[in-house]
Amino acid sequence: MSTRLAGRMASMRTSEIREILKLTQRPGMISFAGGLPAAELFPVEQMVRVTEEVLSRDGHRALQYSTTEGDPPLREAIAERMNRTLGTSVRADEILITSGSQQGLDLSGKLFLDEGDVVLCESPTYLGAINALRAYQPRFVEVPTDDGGMVIDELERCLAENDRIKVAYVVPEFQNPTGRTWSLERRRAFLEIMARRGIPILEDSPYGELRFEGDGMPSLKTLDTHNLVVFLGTFSKTFCPGLRVGWLAASPALRERYVMVKQGVDLHTSTLCQRQIAVYLELFNLDADIERIRDTYRGRRDAMLRAMDESFPPGIRYNRPQGGMFLWVELPDGIDAREILKSSLEDGVAFVPGAPFFPNGGHENTLRLNFSAMPEERIEDGVRRLARILTEAVDAVGVRAAEAPLTAIAGERLGR
Amino acid sequence: MSTRLAGRMASMRTSEIREILKLTQRPGMISFAGGLPAAELFPVEQMVRVTEEVLSRDGHRALQYSTTEGDPPLREAIAERMNRTLGTSVRADEILITSGSQQGLDLSGKLFLDEGDVVLCESPTYLGAINALRAYQPRFVEVPTDDGGMVIDELERCLAENDRIKVAYVVPEFQNPTGRTWSLERRRAFLEIMARRGIPILEDSPYGELRFEGDGMPSLKTLDTHNLVVFLGTFSKTFCPGLRVGWLAASPALRERYVMVKQGVDLHTSTLCQRQIAVYLELFNLDADIERIRDTYRGRRDAMLRAMDESFPPGIRYNRPQGGMFLWVELPDGIDAREILKSSLEDGVAFVPGAPFFPNGGHENTLRLNFSAMPEERIEDGVRRLARILTEAVDAVGVRAAEAPLTAIAGERLGR
Repeated sequence: MSTRLAGRMASMRTSEIREILKLTQRPGMISFAGGLPAAELFPVEQMVRVTEEVLSRDGHRALQYSTTEGDPPLREAIAERMNRTLGTSVRADEILITSGSQQGLDLSGKLFLDEGDVVLCESPTYLGAINALRAYQPRFVEVPTDDGGMVIDELERCLAENDRIKVAYVVPEFQNPTGRTWSLERRRAFLEIMARRGIPILEDSPYGELRFEGDGMPSLKTLDTHNLVVFLGTFSKTFCPGLRVGWLAASPALRERYVMVKQGVDLHTSTLCQRQIAVYLELFNLDADIERIRDTYRGRRDAMLRAMDESFPPGIRYNRPQGGMFLWVELPDGIDAREILKSSLEDGVAFVPGAPFFPNGGHENTLRLNFSAMPEERIEDGVRRLARILTEAVDAVGVRAAEAPLTAIAGERLGR
Repeated sequence: MSTRLAGRMASMRTSEIREILKLTQRPGMISFAGGLPAAELFPVEQMVRVTEEVLSRDGHRALQYSTTEGDPPLREAIAERMNRTLGTSVRADEILITSGSQQGLDLSGKLFLDEGDVVLCESPTYLGAINALRAYQPRFVEVPTDDGGMVIDELERCLAENDRIKVAYVVPEFQNPTGRTWSLERRRAFLEIMARRGIPILEDSPYGELRFEGDGMPSLKTLDTHNLVVFLGTFSKTFCPGLRVGWLAASPALRERYVMVKQGVDLHTSTLCQRQIAVYLELFNLDADIERIRDTYRGRRDAMLRAMDESFPPGIRYNRPQGGMFLWVELPDGIDAREILKSSLEDGVAFVPGAPFFPNGGHENTLRLNFSAMPEERIEDGVRRLARILTEAVDAVGVRAAEAPLTAIAGERLGR
């Protein structure tokens, strides 16, 4: 192309996942690749009723331009819900409705980042955040993580070694891609360290409500006494992603700046979609829906782990997330997940290699498995097919693997 | 706020219009301020039917994540419609669905602009474009315009005086804020000059279908033989703005880059809203709807001009747009539209001062009037109230005005 583009375009790539997802459209493909919620649980019938109600109440306003901040009744409902489920004390005027929580990431990049600024993030971290923030040309400093979240000693080291840290991006609950959840101790330590340096925190929490077992943990926003946390929420995982409605909660001063940024970006999020959700929350029971989602995903996670325990070859590590939609697999050193993917796609099974989740590269021996989108029998079938390919690969590197110890990661739970 | 923000935030302001629009919420206010379509023409009943149809056909997919490019049936329908109404030869794979055409502006800024690059634009130009693009820290070079569009000699001068011109942004049809339409000669000359320098063109066309009289003009996209034009379209002015669905049409290579940028920004536009529009286009007659919108707005424009002709004091210039939603007023030098606004708000009439539409400032004696949002009797009432305030102001500066000639603007039609 002869047209001269902005400098930032040189660093932007089409998401690798996106390309893989295209392949998963093939009929019969068993996909552990995407991050799709189970569509069969979407309240399709109820949405007809809800739309009738929205349009009969005040259809003209539901189809008209509205304020950048978002529909007041929806913001009220979100604040009330956050305060009830998370124990926060957020007000409706601290909420900005976003076009999915992905937009919250883009707005945050625009608000905080100059070229060369540092984003502190988990290693690995959400690919969509890397893509959104990379447009603002920051450097990413990856803090090593284990099954309890960010490793605090490593965080201290990263802080000592880097200046220009402008913002921290974290997913403390059932992280994408690892499914890991931060311990309470780590949350407190992290907040204290960030507060000492005045570094704002983007807490991305799309999966927080999808806990299958164990006790819920206070969000960073709940524990935050310094107004440092911008909480990013979404209805995509608890309701329907196709409406593209999420939100962020920030201090009133910062939220005002976010409103200004969003105004230039898309004026506001779909009035109709916002009202549909507000009326849904009024007429139906989202908590009961979420309970059904949890039950379904718990069964799918169990089916996946059971099949992995039974069929995966030795030397492969994976975790047992207590919620969310993903689990994380580490293959023996020397096995490239991209190579495994080639064989597995031929065998009708898709997943996402882990490397793209590390903004600075490496970790070719990792992969992410999604367990929310396929029924249990297909999950079991897919895992067994994948296991055969992995067994061959492990056998092929067997000599080397026996000689070199696996990379030790503190606190990582060994799958088998 | 102690949090350090990005450098770009220093230049970003809350839109002045936004603040004025808040005041227009007051009961009884006659508003010529916003750019709201007439909500009473929205197809509310039909939208209930459309939503039922969308959800009964494939409700689960309508509520699920979808591709960044946009729903294929909607892209097909848009390409077909553009080709039929504009005479373009656009294919569905050259279309990207955006979250309103406002998003097309933000994506364009991200795609094209490095700090210090120059955006060539009309003087005045759309405030939302200034806000969207300003986030990428360009310089704006304003090309003087008259009733026939950009003045070509002035364009040549601007090109000679400025390097780093990265992109041109224009609204050739019933421009916001002026309501002006470019002549065919200017379109051809502009395209030829841009092609010689390989400068990509953002052609923003939200009002193109709202022509009340006279012959339609080919769009720049229609005339473009060099694949330089990115066409920004929207359903906000012909259907419902609350759905936030627009599109852009670009060369396949450029469109692929836009897709990449949009992916990081919000993944995709609401699947449900896209399908609602696609099904609406299938089941109902948008052309007939647009005819009704044109009839209504024509009546309102006429009511506004009639009242202005009858009641405005001498020395005030304004144009007679052949379509769209706005007309443009120039007060005698020395009268600040912001001061007029203060009095007029007290008298229950809102409008937008023209100065914010000039990215480099000045032109405090201009203002924009919207005629789409109020019924004719209220328009007449509002214009007469405004006329009284203007008459007082003109009388007050009378001595000075009599001494200094009005700023001459080539080709500007004198209102009276």
